[in-house]
Amino acid sequence: MPSYTPPTRDTRFILQDLLRLDEYSNLPVFSAVDNDLIDTIIDEAGKFCAEVIAPLNPVADKEGCTWHEDGRVTTPTGFREAYAQYCEAGWGTLALPEEYGGQGMPHILATVFEEYLNSACHGFHMFPGLTHGAVSAILEKGTEEQKATYLPRLVAGEWLGTMALTEPHCGTDLGLIRTRAVPQDDGSYSITGTKIFISGGEQDLTENIVHLVLAKTPDAPEGSRGISLFIVPKFLVKEDGSLGERNPVTCGSIEEKMGLHGSATCVMNFDEAKGWIVGEENKGLAAMFIMMNAARLSCGNQGLGQASLAYQNAATYALDRRQGRASGERPDPSEAADPIIVHADVRRMLMDARGFIEGFRALTLWCALQLDLAHGAETEEERNTADALVSFLTPVLKGFGTDRGFYTAVNMQQVLGGHGYVTEWGLEQCVRDARVAMIYEGANGVQAMDLAGRKLARDGGQVAETYFTLIERECDAADASLGFITEPLSEAVQDLRDSAQWLVKNAGADPNNLGAGSFAFMQLVGIVSIGLMWLRIASVAQAKLAAGEGDQAFYEAKLAVAHHYARRGLAEVPMLKRQVQAGAETLMALPAEAFEITV
Amino acid sequence: MPSYTPPTRDTRFILQDLLRLDEYSNLPVFSAVDNDLIDTIIDEAGKFCAEVIAPLNPVADKEGCTWHEDGRVTTPTGFREAYAQYCEAGWGTLALPEEYGGQGMPHILATVFEEYLNSACHGFHMFPGLTHGAVSAILEKGTEEQKATYLPRLVAGEWLGTMALTEPHCGTDLGLIRTRAVPQDDGSYSITGTKIFISGGEQDLTENIVHLVLAKTPDAPEGSRGISLFIVPKFLVKEDGSLGERNPVTCGSIEEKMGLHGSATCVMNFDEAKGWIVGEENKGLAAMFIMMNAARLSCGNQGLGQASLAYQNAATYALDRRQGRASGERPDPSEAADPIIVHADVRRMLMDARGFIEGFRALTLWCALQLDLAHGAETEEERNTADALVSFLTPVLKGFGTDRGFYTAVNMQQVLGGHGYVTEWGLEQCVRDARVAMIYEGANGVQAMDLAGRKLARDGGQVAETYFTLIERECDAADASLGFITEPLSEAVQDLRDSAQWLVKNAGADPNNLGAGSFAFMQLVGIVSIGLMWLRIASVAQAKLAAGEGDQAFYEAKLAVAHHYARRGLAEVPMLKRQVQAGAETLMALPAEAFEITV
Repeated sequence: MPSYTPPTRDTRFILQDLLRLDEYSNLPVFSAVDNDLIDTIIDEAGKFCAEVIAPLNPVADKEGCTWHEDGRVTTPTGFREAYAQYCEAGWGTLALPEEYGGQGMPHILATVFEEYLNSACHGFHMFPGLTHGAVSAILEKGTEEQKATYLPRLVAGEWLGTMALTEPHCGTDLGLIRTRAVPQDDGSYSITGTKIFISGGEQDLTENIVHLVLAKTPDAPEGSRGISLFIVPKFLVKEDGSLGERNPVTCGSIEEKMGLHGSATCVMNFDEAKGWIVGEENKGLAAMFIMMNAARLSCGNQGLGQASLAYQNAATYALDRRQGRASGERPDPSEAADPIIVHADVRRMLMDARGFIEGFRALTLWCALQLDLAHGAETEEERNTADALVSFLTPVLKGFGTDRGFYTAVNMQQVLGGHGYVTEWGLEQCVRDARVAMIYEGANGVQAMDLAGRKLARDGGQVAETYFTLIERECDAADASLGFITEPLSEAVQDLRDSAQWLVKNAGADPNNLGAGSFAFMQLVGIVSIGLMWLRIASVAQAKLAAGEGDQAFYEAKLAVAHHYARRGLAEVPMLKRQVQAGAETLMALPAEAFEITV
Repeated sequence: MPSYTPPTRDTRFILQDLLRLDEYSNLPVFSAVDNDLIDTIIDEAGKFCAEVIAPLNPVADKEGCTWHEDGRVTTPTGFREAYAQYCEAGWGTLALPEEYGGQGMPHILATVFEEYLNSACHGFHMFPGLTHGAVSAILEKGTEEQKATYLPRLVAGEWLGTMALTEPHCGTDLGLIRTRAVPQDDGSYSITGTKIFISGGEQDLTENIVHLVLAKTPDAPEGSRGISLFIVPKFLVKEDGSLGERNPVTCGSIEEKMGLHGSATCVMNFDEAKGWIVGEENKGLAAMFIMMNAARLSCGNQGLGQASLAYQNAATYALDRRQGRASGERPDPSEAADPIIVHADVRRMLMDARGFIEGFRALTLWCALQLDLAHGAETEEERNTADALVSFLTPVLKGFGTDRGFYTAVNMQQVLGGHGYVTEWGLEQCVRDARVAMIYEGANGVQAMDLAGRKLARDGGQVAETYFTLIERECDAADASLGFITEPLSEAVQDLRDSAQWLVKNAGADPNNLGAGSFAFMQLVGIVSIGLMWLRIASVAQAKLAAGEGDQAFYEAKLAVAHHYARRGLAEVPMLKRQVQAGAETLMALPAEAFEITV
């Protein structure tokens, strides 16, 4: 069974040294946040996840969820008790509005907790994980009555929310949905249809479940302009807030799947279920994106959480397992073999992992801060700048973060050799669990198109250019001693800019050029963004080392990983630029039927 | 459940058009091989694998093997019957020596069958898969008596062989093994110890199992110079060839693992079991490598088989599943959505897969031909040249082939979106099954060191240089119309040569430089080798198109994939060169204890 130690030291470094959250206390959302509070939250979050949640992870995988003939779904042993403790301690309420019982903390602190929770038990996190999106959608688009009815219970975790979008014949292309919503005389709608892949569609953790369901009204326009969003509770809620009649929304089965067995992936049948519209008719897609964006940011954190868990266990193994001898000086010549940490190729995998994990953690938390600033910064300009950055980077966090999180887990599994493939050590579960985050909430190819099409090309690359300039300015402003990273990073930004400009320019000639280069472009943005984080980390670490402050070994390790990332991580850039600029020609050359040739 | 159609058209193209096997009929091993025979073998191999073996694959995954308290292991439903048919049809005997009941066909034809078998059910293939190695070891190092006793039964498939090398504390570093072999008065040895990860260590397919076991004699030297190889049959064989007493070698348990559930991965306890030495005392490692090299070549074919299976199912899905609309012209504007094959990013994954699969199939079969030539070419020089090439490329086929096979399966799973993650469609099984081949028979990092250290650096890069020159000459000799691939391939070879020279030159200054660059170097050799295959394929396809011969759509597809590979596949080369030349510095900078910092 894998062990999990929350990386509190690194989180503290990012929040306190790198992002200097204490400097934001002028903003209302940060008014209560000082370094003491940060310490307390980090420590308690770590403790809760390590002690209460992490032991569930192997159980979740082995037992999975169970579907019963009567449509009930039971969660793995221990989930109910852990969920009660989660609610009791208020972990779900951290960044939710005080008005509805939340703690009103900044989003960035909830993001820290969420990473730990993902590492500890990704499957468990799936149940409360989607509720924030549901809360946001109701908060922004719901009526006062809806807010009063649902938000306090969702915030408290008494009820949980779902996102019921996908249908058997449509996932990405929600314009194709067939679930119907027929208006009733009482202002409600009668919802009928089948939804699949609904995480937490049914469970035994809460007395009620609040489904947020996409459906079409009878005379809705074709396609995605004809979609509306509905609240469909499992149990209808009486005027006094108590639970009434059972709504005919039932779980038909749960999926057998590669991993994430702790999460119930449900087929949900809506059979003239009673629902209430959220916002206006045919404006459901916008409301859905409120949920979806929250879910996408959260996904990147899942990639990070799995990578972090996998790294820790691989590093422990590499320090312990003795095979072969060091190429250079041996640590202890009296031993027949050395720990495999002496081997350069084992270190390659571990150092690559650190380059991603520590850099991506900084990126995730920096973006979370931007989200807080997008809502709470003093001036509209600051809010807009932060919002544009979050919007631009959301597909990158989701797509790049979950890809690299998975591949990092695969590499960490490799460090364990055969022991990585057997169940006992837990690494193979990491890989299986991490895999899904590349697929759900919009497959990573869809993220890439969101980035290249919607986020880049639609404004002719302006938001992107602002971001590239920011990176260049930081490179230019950095101390000469940081040249080891500012030089390759400056080159990388130029390659990134060339790639962005190529996409914008060539999208007109053949719109497939966007799709053809989108995936490589997403990787590029991710790699350069992590490069920016390593520049900042190296800068802080160098200052701390120069001042002789704090844990010197910690800062020295930061500098070493920064060097590694500068030399090896950024080496991917020229390839990705070439792949962006390779265009659509070779991709679209074959007629569709040529793919029927069996190879 | 995934469907499997053997790629007989492509195999035929490679054997008949590309490698022109009919031109080798002057050699004894090819004397019976004409295009009719090739056609028959390909078709029958495909038929057998598709009809008899492929239906076992989902059953193998779901049921797995079962360990019983008495040490018996039963295989999944259908395995016994299928194995009987496999033996009956003589599929295991294709390339084995006629002297012992084999068909004496060239290795290349067995390689074709093996690929299909891996696609159809990798788990099933594990049982007969290791027998060829056992046969080779006994054939080369065994006594006449051992040959007479074991080879006819192994060749016929009446008995199966295993490779019992790994122990709980040692996998890669076989010098550490603790299993003891004490000489007995009758010339046998008494073997005691525990072996783990023994594929097919116990099963219900054959009446006897022939374990080839590494152990140390009492006064053996330390390390790998003190290892001997022993034959330890499950049942002792009487003089008349019938089975005698049960040898105390028992299966203590089987591993729960990520995938490949159809294969029993056994803990084997040898408790004063009777064994007979193969070859000389303390020369076991050389004998082991005879088995190991066969197994490594076979592994690459597993990566290929999984990738091929995954591609077929992803392509079928992409042609059928409708989501979104084409960026350019729509295939059928009356439909609400287009098949996802219209999307450039979906095609990117499919075309990348084809670049690997078709190119690597050609590479695998070309190497198999070299193996045949290494044994059967007319002159010693030809035999040596072929042997050197196989030896150089063996770690590449294993390491690069299984890595890319796995990543291809992951990408194909991605094409299916959520349907790729659920069990029903079979793609997630591909991914889980394919993963192990990167680990066993020497983890891919070990392959990379074998390539960079043993195969490249030890002779100062001479064999490598011969290979690079061969590729350059083919680029130079190619028709100008092939410039689309000869130009980037020539550049790539130069980058590869620079990388090889860098490694050879810098191994002295810091031996860790070899390990640090080895993995990227292995990828480089793989990518360039596939590039060479695509140059050859494109050349043949162009000639066929010019002549108006054969299936024009097939050759056009070949050319299109060659273009794709030239533009996008070879784009990885500059990155890999940078990573090779990045050296060991950033990898070895941190003290071991810095990896204890929790991230």
